[in-house]
Amino acid sequence: MAARGDRGGEFELIARYFAPLAAKAPLAFGLTDDAAVLRAVAGQDLILTTDTIIAGVHFLPEDPPQAIAQKLLRVNLSDLAAKGAKPRGYLLNCSFPRDISEDWIASFAAGLAADQAEFGIVLHGGDTTATPGPLTLSATAIGELPRGTMIRRKGAKVGDGVWVSGNIGDAGLGLRLLKGEDLGLSDTLAKSCIEHFRLPKPRLGLGLKLRGVAHGCLDISDGLAADLEHMCAVSGVGAEILADGVPLSAAARRAIAAGHIQIGDLLTAGDDYELIFAIGAKDEPKLARVANATGVKITKIGRITRERGVTARDGQGQALALDRKGYTHF
Amino acid sequence: MAARGDRGGEFELIARYFAPLAAKAPLAFGLTDDAAVLRAVAGQDLILTTDTIIAGVHFLPEDPPQAIAQKLLRVNLSDLAAKGAKPRGYLLNCSFPRDISEDWIASFAAGLAADQAEFGIVLHGGDTTATPGPLTLSATAIGELPRGTMIRRKGAKVGDGVWVSGNIGDAGLGLRLLKGEDLGLSDTLAKSCIEHFRLPKPRLGLGLKLRGVAHGCLDISDGLAADLEHMCAVSGVGAEILADGVPLSAAARRAIAAGHIQIGDLLTAGDDYELIFAIGAKDEPKLARVANATGVKITKIGRITRERGVTARDGQGQALALDRKGYTHF
Repeated sequence: MAARGDRGGEFELIARYFAPLAAKAPLAFGLTDDAAVLRAVAGQDLILTTDTIIAGVHFLPEDPPQAIAQKLLRVNLSDLAAKGAKPRGYLLNCSFPRDISEDWIASFAAGLAADQAEFGIVLHGGDTTATPGPLTLSATAIGELPRGTMIRRKGAKVGDGVWVSGNIGDAGLGLRLLKGEDLGLSDTLAKSCIEHFRLPKPRLGLGLKLRGVAHGCLDISDGLAADLEHMCAVSGVGAEILADGVPLSAAARRAIAAGHIQIGDLLTAGDDYELIFAIGAKDEPKLARVANATGVKITKIGRITRERGVTARDGQGQALALDRKGYTHF
Repeated sequence: MAARGDRGGEFELIARYFAPLAAKAPLAFGLTDDAAVLRAVAGQDLILTTDTIIAGVHFLPEDPPQAIAQKLLRVNLSDLAAKGAKPRGYLLNCSFPRDISEDWIASFAAGLAADQAEFGIVLHGGDTTATPGPLTLSATAIGELPRGTMIRRKGAKVGDGVWVSGNIGDAGLGLRLLKGEDLGLSDTLAKSCIEHFRLPKPRLGLGLKLRGVAHGCLDISDGLAADLEHMCAVSGVGAEILADGVPLSAAARRAIAAGHIQIGDLLTAGDDYELIFAIGAKDEPKLARVANATGVKITKIGRITRERGVTARDGQGQALALDRKGYTHF
């Protein structure tokens, strides 16, 4: 764990809060080195994926530090899930504002520890710096899988079914609630949506079972419509989905029924971290067994088409106007 | 290369400027996936190291974008050098302020391309986000070396010589000059110091040759005294160095002679990115051959002691008072 530009506090901080997180990674050397050794098991590929989250952009500054730590790890683990990889560990880059408290860091480390236990991963190394800007966190997840079996984003074929795991849109509703919107939900349903926003569930077990089955897969971070479009664009195909067939939670159904949102809002909301994937018709029986074995609901929502672009149709067959623009960085 | 929270501009940006940087990394899939595959060569360990640099903290916002890109890569490659690893590639996390120009990004990518050619590395993946804060860049360097041969920071033994590569303190002088300090230097000498600050030279060739020879090694980022102290602390030893023996450039000697700085300022300035390492007396003849083979100057500046702590003595044997506090993040 590196500590450039710092000669005191940071080393103590690493030793106190982060070194214990690496205790079970013998080749991380208790974070006393600037590098970690990765020894691949014979016949395995290592998979690396990295994501950055920033206060005020990807999470709310007042979110609980445990939840921020867990979201950081989970958005990365979700990428591993979409690749069919088994997680092994992670690197951590923390840029902390100077006024951050030790209590905050202790809670953040506790969140990391909780998810290390949950997902069987350990800290392998990283870097800690101070920033005059917002809290900025990057994690690089390290996964593994048998050589050559990584599920690609590219590969969806005309005629494939389009499937998703779990329910769509709850995290987006959670974000609306955190921003103060009224969705007409009970406290219990509201709490469940906020939980989805703060604590996505990487579909690691499902991802492992999709190796050799899914033709194309990714995790939904930008919204179902946008991410399906990404898969289609790189695969040189399009897709048509039936909005009525998209799996929704009780909360989402209630918010729609109360007229607070429309189905299109859910298809373009981000942060679901469910998997979306394309499957050939002949492999559909396998999918039922996968769903049973993993206990994860999977739902067919449409099909891959020769015509480019993604169209979502309502019950009357009318194409919905989806706000694809959403939030654009540049 | 992931692109959460963005549905348009960022993908074009990645395609235009970053995908070409990954063209020679077949398992990075042209950055169209959210993950990269790392296939270790049999008998090799993979080495991962990561560092974050932030505008206004680790570089000046007005530094040329090419140089910022190169510094980002080089501070990471320098960590690989200290481990004796051969660089292979890197992951890149960019958090760009919203007002950044496309020209800036094009120049930044050109800097990455230049150093990819210089060091034989390719982009393997990463993440691009927008930030309301300062430009924040992380790179994760991927290196390799024969299994079990990574040079550790820990391992310095009582009686070992303490050696450094290159000259010490020029980068610190460069930073002073960029901040407007007068050091009484000619334009040529001043330019050379600024170049050292902006474009450190990772000692990769030297690092490879130190495997199996150096007992402990790290790259000097926080300053010679502080980094030697890190090596000593983790090795359970101390060190004594002779300030007069520390290799200095013509610029540093001139700035001292003109009374603008003292030797102690150079021992506590950061960003040298030279290697500091401990070598047993019996291996000293090997070192001469290493210096010849690599063309890198290496200089013995002191010895490892049983007494803890690092002491620098002047020509009269007096211990120098070093400002070890320096810049502390927390």
